[in-house]
Amino acid sequence: MTQVAEAAIETTEIAELGRRARAASLALTRTTAEQRRDGLLAAAAAIRAAAPEILDANARDCAAATGLTDASRDRLVLDAKRVAAMADGVEAVARLPDPLGVELARWTRPNGLDIARISVPLGVIGIIYESRPNVTADAGSLCLKSGNAVILRGGSESFLSSAAIVAALRAGIARAGLPVDAIQSVPTRDRRAVGQMLKLSEYIDVIVPRGGRSLIARVMDEARMPVMAHLDGNCHIYIHAAADLAKTRSIVLNAKLRRTGVCGAVEGLVVDRSVLHSHLKPVLDDLIAGGCEIRGDAATRALDTRVLQATEEDWSTEYLDAIISVKVVDGVEDAIAHINTYGSHHTDAILTEDEAAASLFTAGVDSAIVLVNASTQFADGGEFGFGGEIGISTGKLHARGPVGAAQLTSYKYIVRGTGQVRP
Amino acid sequence: MTQVAEAAIETTEIAELGRRARAASLALTRTTAEQRRDGLLAAAAAIRAAAPEILDANARDCAAATGLTDASRDRLVLDAKRVAAMADGVEAVARLPDPLGVELARWTRPNGLDIARISVPLGVIGIIYESRPNVTADAGSLCLKSGNAVILRGGSESFLSSAAIVAALRAGIARAGLPVDAIQSVPTRDRRAVGQMLKLSEYIDVIVPRGGRSLIARVMDEARMPVMAHLDGNCHIYIHAAADLAKTRSIVLNAKLRRTGVCGAVEGLVVDRSVLHSHLKPVLDDLIAGGCEIRGDAATRALDTRVLQATEEDWSTEYLDAIISVKVVDGVEDAIAHINTYGSHHTDAILTEDEAAASLFTAGVDSAIVLVNASTQFADGGEFGFGGEIGISTGKLHARGPVGAAQLTSYKYIVRGTGQVRP
Repeated sequence: MTQVAEAAIETTEIAELGRRARAASLALTRTTAEQRRDGLLAAAAAIRAAAPEILDANARDCAAATGLTDASRDRLVLDAKRVAAMADGVEAVARLPDPLGVELARWTRPNGLDIARISVPLGVIGIIYESRPNVTADAGSLCLKSGNAVILRGGSESFLSSAAIVAALRAGIARAGLPVDAIQSVPTRDRRAVGQMLKLSEYIDVIVPRGGRSLIARVMDEARMPVMAHLDGNCHIYIHAAADLAKTRSIVLNAKLRRTGVCGAVEGLVVDRSVLHSHLKPVLDDLIAGGCEIRGDAATRALDTRVLQATEEDWSTEYLDAIISVKVVDGVEDAIAHINTYGSHHTDAILTEDEAAASLFTAGVDSAIVLVNASTQFADGGEFGFGGEIGISTGKLHARGPVGAAQLTSYKYIVRGTGQVRP
Repeated sequence: MTQVAEAAIETTEIAELGRRARAASLALTRTTAEQRRDGLLAAAAAIRAAAPEILDANARDCAAATGLTDASRDRLVLDAKRVAAMADGVEAVARLPDPLGVELARWTRPNGLDIARISVPLGVIGIIYESRPNVTADAGSLCLKSGNAVILRGGSESFLSSAAIVAALRAGIARAGLPVDAIQSVPTRDRRAVGQMLKLSEYIDVIVPRGGRSLIARVMDEARMPVMAHLDGNCHIYIHAAADLAKTRSIVLNAKLRRTGVCGAVEGLVVDRSVLHSHLKPVLDDLIAGGCEIRGDAATRALDTRVLQATEEDWSTEYLDAIISVKVVDGVEDAIAHINTYGSHHTDAILTEDEAAASLFTAGVDSAIVLVNASTQFADGGEFGFGGEIGISTGKLHARGPVGAAQLTSYKYIVRGTGQVRP
């Protein structure tokens, strides 16, 4: 009985967050670009001013968090420098060009109707994330920049840190006359709140999950509204017969080992049989010297005895670690087939000096980002010039690839006539 | 036991359609714009050639259909003229500009990376519709034009007609060397097939339902993939204090009575109090003379005794009939509030000669299409110059408003470098 009563109360609470977010999103449509910019500048100042409170909340989160891996703890911990970087990030978003009211297209019909497609906010965005408290500021500011209200649900380990950051953001935007409920967070650690958010399609227009695979899979499975996300970043580099050796060595090393835990890290090499000795061998030497484990097919193992046997499962695995798979192929078509079959449609690259091969590859690979002669670790909204990102989507509906402020918009048609009626 | 076995067989059959569609969609990415155009021209020719078979199938559908309303029967019946119009429609789609490979944006980063956003097909589209067999040709050709494979599921009453049309379309595209499974239809009348399609998110990227409210509500509720649709077309016209009288009279009459069964038909008038006698009275006279029933608030009833009392429910009702609601307001903000509260975010218009009022209205009304001084019945992909439409979406994700060939595309980023690695 008690459990039922508690769940009922929470459902009401989450719905109330939704109602407030919807009201704030309508109020935001009446704000100007200057107000939204000033609100974010004030929010950045509020984060700086609240640094002691934020660090204190974070210290309590860290003290309470037990059983975290080193990586998880590193994502959770804040220090003065990280708080300052968070405020800098909010300021950078504030200074981005306004993504709203942009004339995306405009034309006149033979009957004189003037039709314009104009960017508008999406409405209410729900963000569900794990331990990194800085996502609170990043996601909150990108949503506000694009005129959307946001409901944030951070990891339970970072509950107090996120609450302190949200309090600062709200204080800042209120100072600029913006609706304070444009940025809200779920006021409970109760994990059932996530399930309730995912059902709230009446109030939440789109959900963006950020975190591990199990979180994203759960959100994709349960959400009753569209989800912008990627489940895996199983990225490939194809070393084509006409690849430049020096570029190949530096790009593969960077794409694998610069950071192994990011979604743009390369997980699989696909290599033309004709360049095994000339290109793959030195690449393997570089990777192994860098501490990377190699799992290859028979041809790769024949080339280098340090290579472990790859299983079928390896081809579809996102290691997020210093491990890489290697598959030997016979030409571009073969490479495309391997990548489309086993990849995750996120980011894949070809290394070649042959324009025709590059064109075949970019046309044939069905991924959000297809690169020629560059590191897959460029798969990032900041690197694309979006001034930040809320994530990378591998879905084909709405935004594909990095999701920045402009991708958090919809559009409306404004049609101006002079009395036209339809024949 | 038998039921379980049957359901299992069907699930496999529907999944097999999905697998074939996915394979066809990948094959389509390797076709040229010319091939897709020629395939559709051949499909149009095949429809003309198969007119006797299509009419015969339709005659059997009509004979078997009992208990249909006159309107439903009219939607079901084909004649030589309608079949010819269907072929004309396919030819018109064939001649549209190619929506694929369009450079939507392109820029160069400070590090020299050249980033292009290029339109690509969505993948596999599922269309679930009711009695009108011509949707088969319309939807099939728009999907193929945009490089998508399509799975069509028509109404059970039009099962034979649709099958005959699909056979002609497939024969046509096969002749042009396109993958025949780019156009498939569900080979059973069994209504459970719809439920099975809606679960097939592995193979179907987006579902477009076309038909009555209950079909669309079911699809929106059950689909495990994104849905492009509108549930209601509760469209409004706001007669502003500065509306031109002659334009007002002709636009309201056209928007309400040109065709009452289309989603762009106006269902509610919102009228400034200052023009009740000058504007609303003659508009009511026109509408009543045209056979329209009026349901108004107290102020409207005080103006004309023929007006019935509107209930709260009227404000949110899409009549799809010769009925209109009338609400008297005090100014633009009041009108916007009424429309955003009771409307369906589909299409709404303001009639005014005052630029400032028009701008307030177009910015404030949260609808896919907002018109100034034109009939709401222009809410149509053909009228927008899209060369046809698969429907109108009121969702804010991906396509909003009329969905033509260009709206059935996604994009990918093609990033060209010269060896860049990420610092």
